[in-house]
Amino acid sequence: MQPTKTNDFNEIVLGRRSIRSYDQSVKISRDELSEIIAEASKAPSSVNLQPWRFVVIDTPEGKETLTPLAKFNKMQVETSSAVIAVFADMQSQEYLEGILTTAVEQGFMPQEVKDRQLKTVTGLLAGMSHEQLKEMNVIDASLISMQLMLVARAHGYDTNPMGGYEKDKIAEAFNMDKERYYPVMLLSIGKANEEGYSSSRLDVNQIVEWR
Amino acid sequence: MQPTKTNDFNEIVLGRRSIRSYDQSVKISRDELSEIIAEASKAPSSVNLQPWRFVVIDTPEGKETLTPLAKFNKMQVETSSAVIAVFADMQSQEYLEGILTTAVEQGFMPQEVKDRQLKTVTGLLAGMSHEQLKEMNVIDASLISMQLMLVARAHGYDTNPMGGYEKDKIAEAFNMDKERYYPVMLLSIGKANEEGYSSSRLDVNQIVEWR
Repeated sequence: MQPTKTNDFNEIVLGRRSIRSYDQSVKISRDELSEIIAEASKAPSSVNLQPWRFVVIDTPEGKETLTPLAKFNKMQVETSSAVIAVFADMQSQEYLEGILTTAVEQGFMPQEVKDRQLKTVTGLLAGMSHEQLKEMNVIDASLISMQLMLVARAHGYDTNPMGGYEKDKIAEAFNMDKERYYPVMLLSIGKANEEGYSSSRLDVNQIVEWR
Repeated sequence: MQPTKTNDFNEIVLGRRSIRSYDQSVKISRDELSEIIAEASKAPSSVNLQPWRFVVIDTPEGKETLTPLAKFNKMQVETSSAVIAVFADMQSQEYLEGILTTAVEQGFMPQEVKDRQLKTVTGLLAGMSHEQLKEMNVIDASLISMQLMLVARAHGYDTNPMGGYEKDKIAEAFNMDKERYYPVMLLSIGKANEEGYSSSRLDVNQIVEWR
């Protein structure tokens, strides 16, 4: 059965469940995975630095490397079409000038704004501690991760965000520079083979204060 | 003009812009803000702990307290209907048993699964360092923040996520326990009074590796 695309926002958001078991006969093409990631990347990020990076694990060899690092999530790794390892790039400033140049080329920003921005943002980043930069990047990588889970559903797929894996080994296992790429989460993606569990939520009164 | 609700996923996601200037004649009711937060809270979180907490600043007094702490975002603070300060609750385990009890009551979980979960999650949290717990909470609070920005658009409003504010002062300024509530971001929300800027994005090939 082909996955059903939808544009129904409420169904996408309110119907999302974490899916652990996927239909192994459905393989998402790299073209479509790229499209999903491109749409998700419309998420906002601090000073538009887009520090999110993805290792998409969709081959038998890749899955084999991942399995021992995500022992508590074996079913998702084995049955999903792909597992997307989300990282924060601790050297995302390398892309800053390119991002601003593209913005000028696309007519989103005049040259003088670019020049000012480049200076301001470079100074801002230089003034941040490693911990502050990491936190900013982790927040931004989380924003895109949420949007990615929703875009996946618009494409007819489901996901499961996973925090339980060997974060200290994941970069090296996939030949990524461990010092540069900081692990944020894993996201399995595929055609759901189960309904998933409903889960309860705290009441708004328990999580909101008014001032 | 009344805000236009929409259920068009692509329009919500792809049309989102960071909005700094809002129509000050449009005030979102606390009922509707609660509804928006409740819908956003369908976001996933690690072991469903839902460590997100919100201080919704929607009174003149609240805005006055906030303004000096968010000097670079004066326009959003002044013109938005509300600014939502997103925090991570560093003692979210206090809610664990209640969350699981509700899940049993709602028929989402048998009693024996609850008992097992309570034990497992309590052990898991006890084994985490403060830094690990903080990172987990910050990730989860970021997931709901992204979903909140999208739900706001479904309700006809726009937002601006802000990282540039005095994070070390924000909890105390609103009489929140600084040790317990860790600041994640500010989100302004209201009826847009501008189109907002388009911004460029890195190409998928720059952010994805295949394995």
